[in-house]
Amino acid sequence: MNTRSGKKSSASNSKPETTTSTTKNSTNKKVKANEEHDIEALQDVANRLRILSMKMTNASNSGHPTSCASMAEFLSVMFFDKSGMRIKSDNPKSFVADRLVLSKGHTAPILYAAWGIAGLYTEEQLMTLRKFDSDLEGHPTPRLPFVDVATGSLGQGLGVACGMAYTSKYHDSLNNRFWCILGDGECAEGSVWEAAHFAGIYKLDNLIAVVDVNRLGQSEATSLGHNTNVYKKRFEAFGWNALVVDGHDIEALIKAFNECKHKANQPSIIIAKTLKGKGLPNIEDQENWHGKPVGNKIDDLIKHLEEQLVDKNRKLTTIPPENAEEITLHSDAIKLPELSYKKGQQVATRFAYGDALKRLGGVDTYRRICSLDGDTKNSTYALTFKNAFPDRFVECYIAEQNLVSVSIGLSARNKIPFASTFGAFFSRAYDHIRMAGVSKVNIKLVGSHSGVSIGEDGPSQMALEDFAMFRAIPDAVVLYPSDAVSCERAVELATNHHGIVYIRTSRPATEVVYDNHEEFHLGQSKVHGKTDSDKILIIGGGITFESAMKAQKTLAAEGIHARVMDIFSIKPIDRDGIINNAKECNNTILTVEDHYIEGGIHEAVCNAVASLGSIKVHAIAVDSVPRSGTPEDLLNHYKLTAPHVVEKVKSILQ
Amino acid sequence: MNTRSGKKSSASNSKPETTTSTTKNSTNKKVKANEEHDIEALQDVANRLRILSMKMTNASNSGHPTSCASMAEFLSVMFFDKSGMRIKSDNPKSFVADRLVLSKGHTAPILYAAWGIAGLYTEEQLMTLRKFDSDLEGHPTPRLPFVDVATGSLGQGLGVACGMAYTSKYHDSLNNRFWCILGDGECAEGSVWEAAHFAGIYKLDNLIAVVDVNRLGQSEATSLGHNTNVYKKRFEAFGWNALVVDGHDIEALIKAFNECKHKANQPSIIIAKTLKGKGLPNIEDQENWHGKPVGNKIDDLIKHLEEQLVDKNRKLTTIPPENAEEITLHSDAIKLPELSYKKGQQVATRFAYGDALKRLGGVDTYRRICSLDGDTKNSTYALTFKNAFPDRFVECYIAEQNLVSVSIGLSARNKIPFASTFGAFFSRAYDHIRMAGVSKVNIKLVGSHSGVSIGEDGPSQMALEDFAMFRAIPDAVVLYPSDAVSCERAVELATNHHGIVYIRTSRPATEVVYDNHEEFHLGQSKVHGKTDSDKILIIGGGITFESAMKAQKTLAAEGIHARVMDIFSIKPIDRDGIINNAKECNNTILTVEDHYIEGGIHEAVCNAVASLGSIKVHAIAVDSVPRSGTPEDLLNHYKLTAPHVVEKVKSILQ
Repeated sequence: MNTRSGKKSSASNSKPETTTSTTKNSTNKKVKANEEHDIEALQDVANRLRILSMKMTNASNSGHPTSCASMAEFLSVMFFDKSGMRIKSDNPKSFVADRLVLSKGHTAPILYAAWGIAGLYTEEQLMTLRKFDSDLEGHPTPRLPFVDVATGSLGQGLGVACGMAYTSKYHDSLNNRFWCILGDGECAEGSVWEAAHFAGIYKLDNLIAVVDVNRLGQSEATSLGHNTNVYKKRFEAFGWNALVVDGHDIEALIKAFNECKHKANQPSIIIAKTLKGKGLPNIEDQENWHGKPVGNKIDDLIKHLEEQLVDKNRKLTTIPPENAEEITLHSDAIKLPELSYKKGQQVATRFAYGDALKRLGGVDTYRRICSLDGDTKNSTYALTFKNAFPDRFVECYIAEQNLVSVSIGLSARNKIPFASTFGAFFSRAYDHIRMAGVSKVNIKLVGSHSGVSIGEDGPSQMALEDFAMFRAIPDAVVLYPSDAVSCERAVELATNHHGIVYIRTSRPATEVVYDNHEEFHLGQSKVHGKTDSDKILIIGGGITFESAMKAQKTLAAEGIHARVMDIFSIKPIDRDGIINNAKECNNTILTVEDHYIEGGIHEAVCNAVASLGSIKVHAIAVDSVPRSGTPEDLLNHYKLTAPHVVEKVKSILQ
Repeated sequence: MNTRSGKKSSASNSKPETTTSTTKNSTNKKVKANEEHDIEALQDVANRLRILSMKMTNASNSGHPTSCASMAEFLSVMFFDKSGMRIKSDNPKSFVADRLVLSKGHTAPILYAAWGIAGLYTEEQLMTLRKFDSDLEGHPTPRLPFVDVATGSLGQGLGVACGMAYTSKYHDSLNNRFWCILGDGECAEGSVWEAAHFAGIYKLDNLIAVVDVNRLGQSEATSLGHNTNVYKKRFEAFGWNALVVDGHDIEALIKAFNECKHKANQPSIIIAKTLKGKGLPNIEDQENWHGKPVGNKIDDLIKHLEEQLVDKNRKLTTIPPENAEEITLHSDAIKLPELSYKKGQQVATRFAYGDALKRLGGVDTYRRICSLDGDTKNSTYALTFKNAFPDRFVECYIAEQNLVSVSIGLSARNKIPFASTFGAFFSRAYDHIRMAGVSKVNIKLVGSHSGVSIGEDGPSQMALEDFAMFRAIPDAVVLYPSDAVSCERAVELATNHHGIVYIRTSRPATEVVYDNHEEFHLGQSKVHGKTDSDKILIIGGGITFESAMKAQKTLAAEGIHARVMDIFSIKPIDRDGIINNAKECNNTILTVEDHYIEGGIHEAVCNAVASLGSIKVHAIAVDSVPRSGTPEDLLNHYKLTAPHVVEKVKSILQ
């Protein structure tokens, strides 16, 4: 049974004169409200959603009931009318159904309430909102089967929806739709416009967004208030089909959704003019009601809303997708098929990255690996993958927040996205990466042009805080290959590890030091030149591993034995390896890194040995904002070259 | 002498029929090209700029001559025609002159060349581009007197220009203008649209931007190519006066700049349709010429351009501002005028922040302190300042990148901006903060709602990586007050320290433990409950300092003496204090923090003591992505409460 059964009531608030009229822009099909859409029942659901949102936030004594109230009508239509979403109430994780991203994540209660009315939760379960042992968190997370990505940091949902819509349309050729609900306040976030641009240029007509223009932000009115036409103009300028609708008029919403569904070659957005706290007397459209439960007003408010219900007991159901069969989601291991480098060769790890990804792509039976770029592909060598597999390459242009968001969207669709740009520019997307950590998604971020070794371009282009950033993401893996062989293994490990992986590559060529058959593991470093009389353990990575190896030779010639560790896996860190080797090396470590000392290799190592209180850890690192210069000048200035390492070791051992 | 002296040549390429026509939209004043504007000389300058850009990038064997070439005409007009900028060639740091932000920072060579032609540099000096001992870096930095802010991470310049324009117009009532040059590729960055929105709603008619639509990005054509009308529509939708102009037509540019200057109540933007590599045969408008010096083609290219010069030796000068008198820039210390708290009071540090800023604002003779908000002012207590000084408050709405950019702009205009939002949301602006570090600007960022102690809102709202972020900015100061008194001192210290300062405040109330007369210093922690028999040093901050103090009491009752350190200054860190106290405490430290372990207090402390190899450092920190729950549930789950500290101390001392 669904809303099409069309129970009617004489106390209708429908407007037959508009709903039976022909829609103008798209379908040319008559929308007969009273026959095909149960307007009254949808309005009842809207008010029941309001009641539940108030009850839930009262139960948790926190939350945003007024921001929920403005959404009630369009959420009701999206969930329970055939103009809305095609979802499976008995399989909220369905891959072939429509998917919804609630970008204004603080209105989680009404989303949970809608799934409750759809049958997923009892009212009692809904009342566990925001409790420590409940998955019904204050903002949605993918702990819940109907949530693909955590939201709550505003402005991030649309980009994720773009990624999902893109891959479903262009990679998977599915006909499901992707929906996104945004707040009006969050439209001030630039990330919204990065996503809007992406959706426009890629003509994502399987993407339908709604902006809840309820006029009021957290601390005051939004800058655009109810100027819905400005939103319309903006989205149109970004290539969207944009419709302004009274967000509390169910029939108008039905008509608008139908128009959106029939619009080809353009993403669609409904600019819903609404009132914050709609339906709640003395709260509706008032300031100072953001993020506040209604408290002891609740009984009166519920009474007021219940009086408007036409049929308390009417049950609506969600509308399932037409093709309801689920498809198999593969997760087979993907193994590097061949071996390519010779010891002694000079190869930049950024080059090895592109080559490894291409070769993995060649044996990726289920075409899960995708490469995403921020207009740096000729520098990062993502171009190598693109040239081989243009259909699995996504150009995201110079919009790093959206680059990460689209990757998260692909991950939610069972792809293995590798997004690459200069390591420094991932700092642009740090909030998105932080939220990816909350979502526990499966994305791979590859940052090239790390450290001062890039030279003349200067500090704006140098990643010097990337380890600090990525290490502070729980469960993220951070890899730093020093040569081409370890780099291709890093790419292979990243492919087959479910989670966030960051790989740092370098611009200059470094010597291939590993045999192609060398095995690499997460959390395992590599030791070089071990003797029984080692006096110090030098830990390097990337370009500084090479300095350490050269320093080792020089020192050995002078009778000073130094053991070198190629750190490779910065997180998880090889704690046992570091401690055991340090113990064999006079309890003395020197870390050498082309990164600021804060949050980088040095502090990772310090952290690993800290509780022992018996191992000295010294450091060479970048200790100020660099400037332009040749790589040699800069490496020399920051004492990252072999002669400086030699000098430092001697001074430590004195 | 300036260009208005109007030397003429018979071989004119001017178009009198257009330039003598009346401008349509604004001035109604005839633009007589041959009388008032020296078109030929401006064209000569444009080609000389091209030649210099090629020579400079050849000399450094790196750089972006083709991205410079597309800008040559409009830069020539901006520098040397009266329709352009009003600047002082003899005082490139002038505060009252117009200021230019080169958002497409990779075209630094042509900017330096323009200042060279203006008289600031010899050709020999220009050829030091990108050398280690030259201030003419690959991307501009404020080492140079005409640069207010470092650029090179694309999309950041417009927001800074907005901040400068806003404060000059609304705070300083100056009539100078702020100019910004953007690339077309960078218009994909969301931060551009955050800035565009800001400029539109605040009607910054003293802001003139130019987009260099040269069609070609780094690795391929931009997504919009030469569709200049799309750019126009977008900026218009964001509230701008937008003009599409042939960017190589000097007369059209003059006319357009004049129109912009006379447009009231709107920021203006010129969408300049240009060709990358313009004027360089076989390079112009070709792909694969991004970021490449012309190499051995240079002689032919210079010959080609020189042949077009009408008068090699003609000297143009810049046009000075009409009111050329500089104003005094004050930097007097601002001291907290009164003392407010009583020991034992329960006050949230976020509240104390707002109150301290208000009281400092009251004695800020030169009105330098400004407060900036991202629609969270009722949570961060920036509202307290706004209520007292609405004219020094800037609402930036939910656009944290722009919040930081506008702050940077204010800093460049000698203000002391305090930008506040939830600490977590500064991650949205990490690239901007990174670039603020490169610029070494004077901004104060105050992040509230830190850690799991915020409770029910869940992980999306919790700052748990903010220390990791800010510590990795060179020279940044990171303060973490534990009570209201130390918080107001933190705000006072931040006000009077020139540089980037981050202050972390907490949501819950904490007990006032310091006397109002207690002195606080950067790099100084505070020790509590010192005895001669202390067995461990417990280091906490904010909410965990309170846990440590309670644990100290419990432990003391059981005969275990623990010394507590309130870290307060996380960067610079009190290295001597930590080491000396640790030595007196059995060489044993326990850090307790409401932050991830990576990059936070623990690693800062480990780093401080690492080279000794004699101090054990143990940790309690947040070790996974949290979830919603009460503050108590969460603090308990992550073992941040006093009983857990007690338990941990006992297990360490066993």
